[in-house]
Amino acid sequence: MERLPYQATEGAATYGNLHLPVCLLLDNIRSMYNVGSFFRTADGAGIERLLLSGITARPPQNAISKTALGAELRVPWEPVANAAEAIATLRQNNYEIAAIETTVRAVDIFDWQPRFPVCVLFGHEVDGVAQPLLDACDTHVRIPMLGLKHSLNVASAAAIVMYELLRKYRKLHAANQ
Amino acid sequence: MERLPYQATEGAATYGNLHLPVCLLLDNIRSMYNVGSFFRTADGAGIERLLLSGITARPPQNAISKTALGAELRVPWEPVANAAEAIATLRQNNYEIAAIETTVRAVDIFDWQPRFPVCVLFGHEVDGVAQPLLDACDTHVRIPMLGLKHSLNVASAAAIVMYELLRKYRKLHAANQ
Repeated sequence: MERLPYQATEGAATYGNLHLPVCLLLDNIRSMYNVGSFFRTADGAGIERLLLSGITARPPQNAISKTALGAELRVPWEPVANAAEAIATLRQNNYEIAAIETTVRAVDIFDWQPRFPVCVLFGHEVDGVAQPLLDACDTHVRIPMLGLKHSLNVASAAAIVMYELLRKYRKLHAANQ
Repeated sequence: MERLPYQATEGAATYGNLHLPVCLLLDNIRSMYNVGSFFRTADGAGIERLLLSGITARPPQNAISKTALGAELRVPWEPVANAAEAIATLRQNNYEIAAIETTVRAVDIFDWQPRFPVCVLFGHEVDGVAQPLLDACDTHVRIPMLGLKHSLNVASAAAIVMYELLRKYRKLHAANQ
């Protein structure tokens, strides 16, 4: 996982004194517009970096920029050749590995008590997170679906997850002061 | 605000015994893809209905269906000729009126203590919520922005807001049991 020269500026992942120790692994995200949305929201939530694996497109791409609106130049990202190896390395570095996927063992996102730092996996828009990666996760997290459809758009799901992690981390941070 | 024959089915706004007393007013949303995203996420979060005013496109439209994926047939919606009048009526019906907009009086979404039922206003992708409507709101709500950009995509913001309201309402509901 060699770093590309897309490093966050000083302000990109801080909020006052707050830094959000969360990275996202995007495996096989099909739509470049969705990839761009991840970047834009990640900038807003102060995500530390994005890891891009499988068919997930990498900047620079016009279709990514169209929804990232420059955030792809601000949020650090890394290409990942082997997602399973990246997960193993993150685990060695004490990350909780969590997939956003509705499985039988999934915990409701609002009940989830993440152990920071956290790496969150998002998978293909239709097929979801690949089974070998799901098997390698510490936690599966589901977003409650109250209606008749069974999933959200992946960029909408990502926005909910990133900001819920920010909320939880700020709460933890406030409790420790 | 006459109802169109797009009524929620029994299951659309319940979650176990939970019904989420939140409606959204979409005023001058430019992109039909964004309108479709509102529908899809609203179905997931159990939103009671969408009110569509100004230039906001109304179903049926192919571009809305492309991102709503059928949710536009499930989530109740109403065309609104005059957004200010709609707000006045909702207030008479005891709704808290809240705009998602970063103004000087805006409260952080995670600190916001909504008084249900709630109507949430979203405005134009670039220009935001129109000033006369902002003036008519009880509350302005901002989403914390930790990065260098100053706003999120409106559909991403909507996903964060809808699910944060669901989280708060569930918590309130659990506390009252």
